[in-house]
Parts: sequence; structure tokens; C-alpha cells
Amino acid sequence: MPTDAHEACFEAGIKFGTLYHQFAGTPVSPASARSLETAMAEAIENQPHCVAVDVDILDDVLAETLAAQSADYTELTGRFMEVRMRVEYEGITVHTEMEMEGDYPLMKLVSVDE
Amino acid sequence: MPTDAHEACFEAGIKFGTLYHQFAGTPVSPASARSLETAMAEAIENQPHCVAVDVDILDDVLAETLAAQSADYTELTGRFMEVRMRVEYEGITVHTEMEMEGDYPLMKLVSVDE
Amino acid sequence: MPTDAHEACFEAGIKFGTLYHQFAGTPVSPASARSLETAMAEAIENQPHCVAVDVDILDDVLAETLAAQSADYTELTGRFMEVRMRVEYEGITVHTEMEMEGDYPLMKLVSVDE
Amino acid sequence: MPTDAHEACFEAGIKFGTLYHQFAGTPVSPASARSLETAMAEAIENQPHCVAVDVDILDDVLAETLAAQSADYTELTGRFMEVRMRVEYEGITVHTEMEMEGDYPLMKLVSVDE
Repeated sequence: MPTDAHEACFEAGIKFGTLYHQFAGTPVSPASARSLETAMAEAIENQPHCVAVDVDILDDVLAETLAAQSADYTELTGRFMEVRMRVEYEGITVHTEMEMEGDYPLMKLVSVDE
Repeated sequence: MPTDAHEACFEAGIKFGTLYHQFAGTPVSPASARSLETAMAEAIENQPHCVAVDVDILDDVLAETLAAQSADYTELTGRFMEVRMRVEYEGITVHTEMEMEGDYPLMKLVSVDE
Repeated sequence: MPTDAHEACFEAGIKFGTLYHQFAGTPVSPASARSLETAMAEAIENQPHCVAVDVDILDDVLAETLAAQSADYTELTGRFMEVRMRVEYEGITVHTEMEMEGDYPLMKLVSVDE
Repeated sequence: MPTDAHEACFEAGIKFGTLYHQFAGTPVSPASARSLETAMAEAIENQPHCVAVDVDILDDVLAETLAAQSADYTELTGRFMEVRMRVEYEGITVHTEMEMEGDYPLMKLVSVDE
């Protein structure tokens, strides 16, 4: 039988997959980055057991990308953001985060605390 | 050969398909509706020739749906929103909007003006 | 420190969030249901540690919905599908599934085996 | 008042925005490219007035990208595909296509014929 800690980790994973694949591909620019960060966090915080979500769209990486291309916006993808989340399930607290690990946006389980 | 008016209408359609299918499925509640409206509008305004986007998430329809179900949020779909957009392309102005027409979220070309 | 079982459950959750929010909103009809099932399963099986994905689009529920509306297709959402997945991580096997629980598409951790 | 040709171009644009933003971000590899092409085409062909959709996922571009990175899959984006569509509306036939134009996935109106 899955334990409460297993369930808490499963729930934390759902939130990360949701956040990434709901919003990947969204047109984003420096001017729209702040409203997108807020909407992403508030949307995912609606999901069960999701207590806090923090999304940082990385202005410097975005600026670098825009400087090297013709269009003045791009599509949101993992290399433009860092995310931290806290999930609480039956007294278990799970912290997760996403950062680039080389060329891959790695979703990581940071801690699982009872 | 497509005319400028044809191109303007094509561009207006792209924006509507983008808005709908990028954000359909987003977890939404009364508490997160305002930030989602803003992020949707600002995201689509990044796209070429898109001058103004206005998204209204319909609080009353949302409240009715939430009252009739177990969860306290739902997924964004056409019946929870009305959208108006203005696209300008080579001097042509196109107004479009989306509203429910019976049970179908109809995207409509309102006017094409030179 | 998270254990291998915690990581396995987190990975399983990511796959479910991805599957749901990547494909929710896709136009679907009886004629296109089979190709969508296959594409969803094969797309998610690309993700790390994801060994098997089975997606069933529920023809009877789809038919019922289409009979009651004007359009001859609808948007994919949780009530039109059942999903089963198997994730393997460092010798841990996790089985998950999604089914409607009343009006909510519940993603469930079925078993975690070492 | 919008003409039938305007409406046909607007409809053609909607299909392109839908296709791109519904499927951008999907995990894709050489092994899953064929099923994704089929599902994308059949999904969009469900939409009103959309007669034919052809999606080519570019195996060579995909292979090049995978050779240069650590993961053995990537996320679908414009540079991995070419798309052609035919929309028919009240006797007007519109052909559209998407190809990379430098670094930008350009959606183009190819012809509008009465």
C-alpha cells in the first residue's frame, strides 16, 4: 500500500507536470513575464494539497535569447524559468524545485518531511 | 494572391486558436481568475500584429459550476470566458470576439476595416 | 533525504500531470480517438523512467456527449479517458491510474513495489 | 461586413494557432514522431471547415538536436515540423503552411481561391 509520504510525492509530481505542460509554449516577453509568473503560480495553487508555488521567469536568459533572434518574444520553455513548490498531504511536507541541469529542465524532489 | 485583408483575418484567427488552446485546461477558481485574464491577454499581445486582447473570465458561470461539483476549482474552457481582440495588419483593422453560441464557444470575425 | 520510493512516486506524478495538461483541450471525435490514444501513450513513454502508458478514450461517454450537443467533436478532458501507467525508478515499480471519481478525474497511486 | 473569403482566412488561422499551441511542448522522439503526426492531423481535421491537415515531423532536425543534448527526447516546437492545411468555407478554398523562416516558425497564407 502506498504510504502518506508516497502520496505526497505523487501529488508533488502532478503539480510539476501540470505547470510545465500547461504553460510551455506560451508567448512570453520581458513585458509579459510578470503576469505569467503570477498566473502560473495561482493556477497551480488551485490544485489539491498545493500550498505554495513560486515561479521566476529569468529575465537575463530571456533577454539573451531575444537579442539573438528576429522576433521580440519567444515561447516559454524550461530554460526560461525556475520554480519552487510546497505540497502538504496528511502532515507530510514536500518541497520540489525545477532548474536547468545542463540542457535539461530537471524537476527535483528537495525534501520530504513528516 | 492573398490580399492584406486576407492576411489580417488569417493573423486574427491564429491569435484566437493560440489563446484558446494554450490556456484551455488551466486550473481556475474565483481567486485565480484575475491573474489568468491578465496573463492570457499579455501573452497573446506579444504575437505579431496583435494590438489589444481583452479576456473576461465569467465569475457567475464559474461560481455556478463550482457550486454543483465537489472540487473548488475547475479547468478553463470556452464557457467560462469571453474574449475580444484587435489585430492590425498593413492598415487593416480586424475585430474578433468569442462567446458561447448555445453550447459551442464560437470565435467570430466582427469587422474588417481598411 | 528523499528515498528511491519517494523519487519513483514523484516521477509517476510528473507523467500524469504532463499527460493531462499537454492533451486536455485537444479536439476529439470517435474518428480521431484511436490516433490520439496512441500519440498520448507514446509521447509520455519518452519521459524518463516511464515504462508503459495505456490510454483509453471512452467511446461511449464521447458518443453520449456528442449526441447532446451541436458540434460533432468535443475537447478532450478527464471524463473521456482512463489512463494506466507504470514507472520504474531504481528498482521501484509504481503503478498509477486515472478514472473519474464522481465528477473529478482522480489520478491515483495504485501500488509502489520494491 | 466580413466576406466569405475573410471568414475562410480567419478559420484557417484558428486551425494553425490551435495545432501549434495544443501540441507545442509534447515530448517527442524519432520513435513517437509518426503517431504524433497522425494524431495532430486528425485532431485538427475535427474542427469546422478543416478539410485536410498534413504534419511532417522533421526526422533530420530532430536527430541533430538529440545528438547535441543529454536526453533522448525533446519538446515539440516549430523547428521540428512542417505543416500544410486546406480549409474550405462557403466555396472558398484556403491553403496554408508553416515552415521555419530563419529562426521563426512562420504560418503562411499560401492561396485563397473562390
